[in-house]
Amino acid sequence: MGYSDLDKLAVNTIRVLAVDATFKANSGHPGAPMGMAPVAHILFNKFMNFNPKNPDWVNRDRFVLSNGHGCMLQYALLHLFGYAISMDDLKSFRQVGSITPGHPESHDTPGVEVTTGPLGQGFANSVGLAIAQAHTAAVFNKPGYDLINNYTYCFFGDGCAMEGIASEAASLAGHLKLGNLIAIYDDNGISIDGDTKCAFTEDVSKRFEAYGWHTLEVKDGDNDWQAIEDAIKKAREVTDKPTMIKLRTTIGFGSKQQGTGGVHGSPLKEDDCKNVKKIFGFDPEQSFVVPQQVYDMYHKKAAEGAAMEQEWNQLFQKYASEYKAEHADLARRLTGKLPEGWEKSLPTYKPSDSAVASRKLSEAVLEKIHSVVPELLSGSADLTGSNNTRWKNAVDFQPPEYGIGDRSGRYIRYGVREHAMAAVMNGLAAYGTVIPASGTFLNFVSYAAGAVRLSALSHVRVIHVATHDSIGLGEDGPTHQPIETLSHFRALPNCMVWRPADGNETSAAYYSALTAKHTPSILALTRQNLPQLEGSSIEGALKGAYPVLEASNAALTLISTGSEVNICVDAATFLKKHGLTVRVVSVPCFEVFDSQDKAYKLKVLPDNVPILSVEAASTMGWERYAHEQFGLNRFGASGAYKDIYKKFEFTPEGISKRALATVDFYKGQPVRSPINRAFQQIL
Amino acid sequence: MGYSDLDKLAVNTIRVLAVDATFKANSGHPGAPMGMAPVAHILFNKFMNFNPKNPDWVNRDRFVLSNGHGCMLQYALLHLFGYAISMDDLKSFRQVGSITPGHPESHDTPGVEVTTGPLGQGFANSVGLAIAQAHTAAVFNKPGYDLINNYTYCFFGDGCAMEGIASEAASLAGHLKLGNLIAIYDDNGISIDGDTKCAFTEDVSKRFEAYGWHTLEVKDGDNDWQAIEDAIKKAREVTDKPTMIKLRTTIGFGSKQQGTGGVHGSPLKEDDCKNVKKIFGFDPEQSFVVPQQVYDMYHKKAAEGAAMEQEWNQLFQKYASEYKAEHADLARRLTGKLPEGWEKSLPTYKPSDSAVASRKLSEAVLEKIHSVVPELLSGSADLTGSNNTRWKNAVDFQPPEYGIGDRSGRYIRYGVREHAMAAVMNGLAAYGTVIPASGTFLNFVSYAAGAVRLSALSHVRVIHVATHDSIGLGEDGPTHQPIETLSHFRALPNCMVWRPADGNETSAAYYSALTAKHTPSILALTRQNLPQLEGSSIEGALKGAYPVLEASNAALTLISTGSEVNICVDAATFLKKHGLTVRVVSVPCFEVFDSQDKAYKLKVLPDNVPILSVEAASTMGWERYAHEQFGLNRFGASGAYKDIYKKFEFTPEGISKRALATVDFYKGQPVRSPINRAFQQIL
Repeated sequence: MGYSDLDKLAVNTIRVLAVDATFKANSGHPGAPMGMAPVAHILFNKFMNFNPKNPDWVNRDRFVLSNGHGCMLQYALLHLFGYAISMDDLKSFRQVGSITPGHPESHDTPGVEVTTGPLGQGFANSVGLAIAQAHTAAVFNKPGYDLINNYTYCFFGDGCAMEGIASEAASLAGHLKLGNLIAIYDDNGISIDGDTKCAFTEDVSKRFEAYGWHTLEVKDGDNDWQAIEDAIKKAREVTDKPTMIKLRTTIGFGSKQQGTGGVHGSPLKEDDCKNVKKIFGFDPEQSFVVPQQVYDMYHKKAAEGAAMEQEWNQLFQKYASEYKAEHADLARRLTGKLPEGWEKSLPTYKPSDSAVASRKLSEAVLEKIHSVVPELLSGSADLTGSNNTRWKNAVDFQPPEYGIGDRSGRYIRYGVREHAMAAVMNGLAAYGTVIPASGTFLNFVSYAAGAVRLSALSHVRVIHVATHDSIGLGEDGPTHQPIETLSHFRALPNCMVWRPADGNETSAAYYSALTAKHTPSILALTRQNLPQLEGSSIEGALKGAYPVLEASNAALTLISTGSEVNICVDAATFLKKHGLTVRVVSVPCFEVFDSQDKAYKLKVLPDNVPILSVEAASTMGWERYAHEQFGLNRFGASGAYKDIYKKFEFTPEGISKRALATVDFYKGQPVRSPINRAFQQIL
Repeated sequence: MGYSDLDKLAVNTIRVLAVDATFKANSGHPGAPMGMAPVAHILFNKFMNFNPKNPDWVNRDRFVLSNGHGCMLQYALLHLFGYAISMDDLKSFRQVGSITPGHPESHDTPGVEVTTGPLGQGFANSVGLAIAQAHTAAVFNKPGYDLINNYTYCFFGDGCAMEGIASEAASLAGHLKLGNLIAIYDDNGISIDGDTKCAFTEDVSKRFEAYGWHTLEVKDGDNDWQAIEDAIKKAREVTDKPTMIKLRTTIGFGSKQQGTGGVHGSPLKEDDCKNVKKIFGFDPEQSFVVPQQVYDMYHKKAAEGAAMEQEWNQLFQKYASEYKAEHADLARRLTGKLPEGWEKSLPTYKPSDSAVASRKLSEAVLEKIHSVVPELLSGSADLTGSNNTRWKNAVDFQPPEYGIGDRSGRYIRYGVREHAMAAVMNGLAAYGTVIPASGTFLNFVSYAAGAVRLSALSHVRVIHVATHDSIGLGEDGPTHQPIETLSHFRALPNCMVWRPADGNETSAAYYSALTAKHTPSILALTRQNLPQLEGSSIEGALKGAYPVLEASNAALTLISTGSEVNICVDAATFLKKHGLTVRVVSVPCFEVFDSQDKAYKLKVLPDNVPILSVEAASTMGWERYAHEQFGLNRFGASGAYKDIYKKFEFTPEGISKRALATVDFYKGQPVRSPINRAFQQIL
C-alpha cells in the first residue's frame, strides 16, 4: 500500500511525455493527460490485466479513452508498457504516416481497443465491450473455468458527459446491470468554452444513480492517490451495477495554466514546458525522456500480464479436454472466421415463390442462420416487430433477475437509442467474440451517423438492419421516409450499403455482411412486399451489380436497387410491347460493384447503351453509373405506399416515359459507359 | 372547479375521433391519443392561450407533441377548437394530399408549431421555443407591457425520454432555468417492444431533478383530472426552473387492449372500435361524430383566445406610442424580413486583402452584421473559439443569477450537445422572433443529422456554422475530418450547403442564408487560410456557381468549392505555362445553382468543354456537374494540413495531372455539358 517516489516519477513521466509530444507536434491536448496521469498509472498498474506482447488476448481488461483528445495519455502508457509503440512513434505524434494520430484509432495502433475522439462514442463502446464480456462469460464459462471475467474501464470527460449518445448508453448499461463496467469521469470543470458551468450545471452523479449505476466520488484526484485506488477497488466489488467514479482533477496539472481552458487544446508554451519539467524533477533542456526505473516498473507489470495470459492459455487448453465443442467454438470465433458451411443455411428463392417484404426476408435469414452462426447477436432500437430482427426462439440478453432473459441471450433490447446502439455494436464487435446486428428504420440510422462513421473508420464487422427504407413505408410520412440516407452512407468510405431487390439478394447481403471482417454493412430493407425476380441470384448480387434482365441489342439499360428493380422489370415488359428493348441491372451494393474489375463492370454497363437509374430516393451519386437519373430530390408524402409510388411516378409507365426520353436524348450520340474514367481515384 | 359530464364527453370525443381516424386510415397510433386525451383537454381548456383564427399570434402558448405519432390527438384538438382543419381533413388522415400526415408537419398544418415524430425532436424544439420566449421577453417587455409571457408545453413519451437528443436538451433547459417550459411525460409504460421495462428501468424524475428541473407526479392520469390540473397549476408557479410532470396513463384507455403494445401503433379492430364507442356513450354504428355541445365548449374557449389576442393587439398598439423603436423592431421581426439595408454591412474583399480562414471570415460577417440584424442569435456546441461564432461584445444568454450573462444575451452556450443544438435552433426559428445560428465542426453536424433533416422538412431559417470542413483541419485526424458530410447534406432536399472559397463568397453565403426564409443553411468553413480570389464576387456566388477564372477557347473547366478553388486557380496558371488553357468555376452552393435557369447554367458549364471537379471530400454527387471527379473516397490522415493535401495530391500539380488526363480522355469526343438532361426531375 502507499505510493512511492517511483510511482510519482512514473506519473510525472507520463505528464512530461504528453507535454513534449504536443509541443513537438505544435498541436494536441496536453491538459487531460496531465490531469489523468495519476488515475491511469494506478488503474493500469494495480488493477488491469493485459499482455502488451499480445494485445488480442481475449480476457484482457479493456481500456477505453472516451475523451480521445487526451490520447497522448494512452500512447504514453502503451509505450511504457512495451506495446509496439516506439519513442519515435511518440515523437511523430499527429504527423502524416504515424501510428499516433490526433485521436486514437483502433485500426492503426496496437493496444487501442476502439476509435475515440468524437465525444461520447468511447463511453458507448465501453458498454458494448462490457455486454460482450458478460455474454461471452455466460456462454463459455464453466465451473472451474472462469475463462472470461475481464473488466471494462472507461475514462470520460465533461464533453462525453454532455453528449446524448453517452446518456443513452449509460441508461442502457444501468438497465443491464453491467457489473464489470467501471467508468471514471474526469470532472475537471473545463471544456473548450472554458468553465463548464457556462453550459453544464447538472448533478452528474445523481443522473447516473437515476440510471441505476453505483456512484463514487474522489474529491482530490491530483493528490489523494489512495482514494483513487480505494474507489476502483470498491467499484470492482459491486457486481450487480456498473460504477461511475467522479474524479475531481486539475486539467494541465503542473502547468502555469493548470485548471484553465488554456491547457485543454493547445500545447504549452516553451517556458511552461520547461517549468513543468523543473517542477517534476526533469531536465528542462531535454525532451522525450523516460527514466529507466519507470521503464523497469512498467515492464515488470507487462511481464506479469504475459504470465497471466500464459496461465489463461493453460486453462483454456485444459478446457479443451472437458468442453471440446465450446473450446472449438471460442477458438474459432477468435479467428473471426464463420463456421464451415454456414452459408448453406442461407435461403434461396425461385421466381414462383411468393412476394415478401425484404424485412421479412431478412427475418427468414436470421431464422435459418442463427443456430449455425452462434456469435450473431441481434437486437433493435424498440422496433423489434417492425425490423423483424428477432428469431422465434430468441432469448433476450438481460440480467436474469428480471425474469425476461439471461446473460447468454442473443437478442438485445436497445430501447429507443439509435446512436448508442450503433456505438455499442462497435464495442461488441471490438470485443472479438460476437458479431452484432441490430435494427431501426433506415431514416433513423441518421441519428446514429456519428457511430456508423466510426464503424467504417474502425473496420469493424457490424450489421445495421435498416428497414422501412423509402417512401414505400407509406403512411408514416415524410418525417420517416429517407431521401438522402442512401447517398449519405454510400459516400462514407468502407461502408457497404446493401439494398436487396428480393430474397436471393437479401441472402447475398447477409453473406457479404457476415464475411466482411473489416467492413460494416447497412442493409436497407422494405416494409412492402417484393416479388422474387426471374433473373436474381446470390452469385450475381455478390458482384454488387448484375443484369437481372439481359437483352442483346438493348436500346437502354435500366439500373436500379431494391423495391424499384421489379418495377423496372415491369417497365421493360411495357416498353417491349411498344417496341423498345431494354435490359435491367440490379445494383444491390455500390461499394461491392466498385471493387469489381473493369471488364466485368463494362459487361454490366456496356458502352453504346444509354443508362437510366431508378431509385425512390435522392439521385445524388447515381450519375456514377447512369447517364440519366430518375429519383426523388424532394421529401415524400404520407399515404398508402401504392398511392405515393403513383404520385411520384415510380410505376412501369413513369419509368417508361423517362426511358423513352433518355433513348431519344442519346439518339445519334456516341454513348460511353460511365465505367470508363479518365483517371483512377486515390484509395 | 371539478369536471362535468361535458368535460368527459369532450375527452371521449377526442378518443373516439382518434379511433375512427386510425381505423379509416388502416394505420396510425390510437393508443397515445386515448391515454392523453384528459391531460390535453385540461391543458388546452384551462391553461393555454391561443387564437385558432390566427395561429401566428406571437404571444400564444406553444404546444409541442414530441411523441408525434400520437398526432390524431393534436389534429382532433385543432379541429375542435376551429383551426383550419376540417372533419374531412380528419377523415383523410394519413392519405396522400391531406394536411393530416402520419406525423405532424408544421409547414403543412395550421396550429402545428414544429414537425415531430422522430423521437426526442419535439422535446428539444420546445426548449428552443422556451429560450426564444425568454429572450424575446427580455428584449421587448417593459414596465406595464408584459408583451411576451407565453408558456411552452410539451408532451413526450417513453421513446422521447430514451433518446439522447432529449437528454441533451433537458440538461440545457435545466441549466438555463427555463421557468416557462412545462413538459408532461406520458409515462404509460409501453413502447413498441412492449413493456418499457425490457430496456428502460431508470428513474426519469430523478434524472430530470439531476438536470435542475422541478418535477411533479400524477399517479392516475386516467381518472384523477383534478390532480392533473393541480400539477399544471403548480408547474406554472415555479418560475425559476422548467417543470417535468410525470403522468401515469393507460395507453389505449377504453380499448379491450388498453395498457398493452397492441394499441400503440395499429388501429383497433372493428369490434373494439364499437366497444370503445359503447363504453364512451357513442353510437357504435357511427363514425367521426362530434356532439354539438363539445364544439360549443371548444369554440367558446377559442373565442376567449381571440379576445385575448385582441387585447394583446391593443397593448401592442399602445406600446408603439411609448416604445416606438422596439415596436417597429418586433413588428418587423414578425414579418420575417430583415432590416432595410442590412446587407450593406456585409464585408467585401479585394484580391490584395490578406488570406484568411473562412471561419474567421464568418466571424468578420457576424462582427459587422450583429448590430444591424438584432434577431440573430449565435452560439456554439462548446467550440466557440474554434467556430469563431461569437462577436466581441456579445452577451451570453444565461439566467442572470449566474453572473455570466442575461436573458437578453444573444450568444447561446449549447454545451457539447450537437443534436439538441440543431433541434433547439428549429424551435428558436419556429418561435418567429429570432434567427438562430450556431457552430460545431462540419463532421459533427452528422451528430445532428436527425434535427437538420427536420430543419429542411419544416422550412425553417436556421444557420449551421460548420467549421473545420475537410482534411484541411489537419492534425485532429480522420475521426474529425468529414468525407461524406457534404454529399450527405447536399442530398437532403431544401437544405443549402454553402462552401465559400473566400471573403466575398462567405458574405454571399450569409446573405443567402439570412434571406432564405424557408430554408436552412449549412456553412462549411475552413480552419486554414484562404486567399481572396481575383475573380470572386458576392453577385456571382449568389448564383450558386460562376466562373472565377474565365477563358475563351478553354480546353477544360475546373469546378470546385471552398479551399480547393484557389488551388484550381493555381493549377490553371501551372497548366497555362504548359500550354493548356483552363477556366475555373466556383460552385459555393449546389442547391442555389440548381435553381438557376438553363441558359445561365450552360454559360457556366458550356458544351464542348470537358469538366473536372475538385473537392477534398467524397466525389459522390459531383458527376452532376463534372465529367470527371477528383476527390477523396477514403478517410483522411492526421498531420499538418499542407502535408495531408500533398499526400492526397490536392496541389496544383496533382490537379494538373488529372486535368491533362481528362483533356486527353475526351479528345476527339463530342462533349455535352451535364447541364443537358433527358428529362426534368420531380420537385
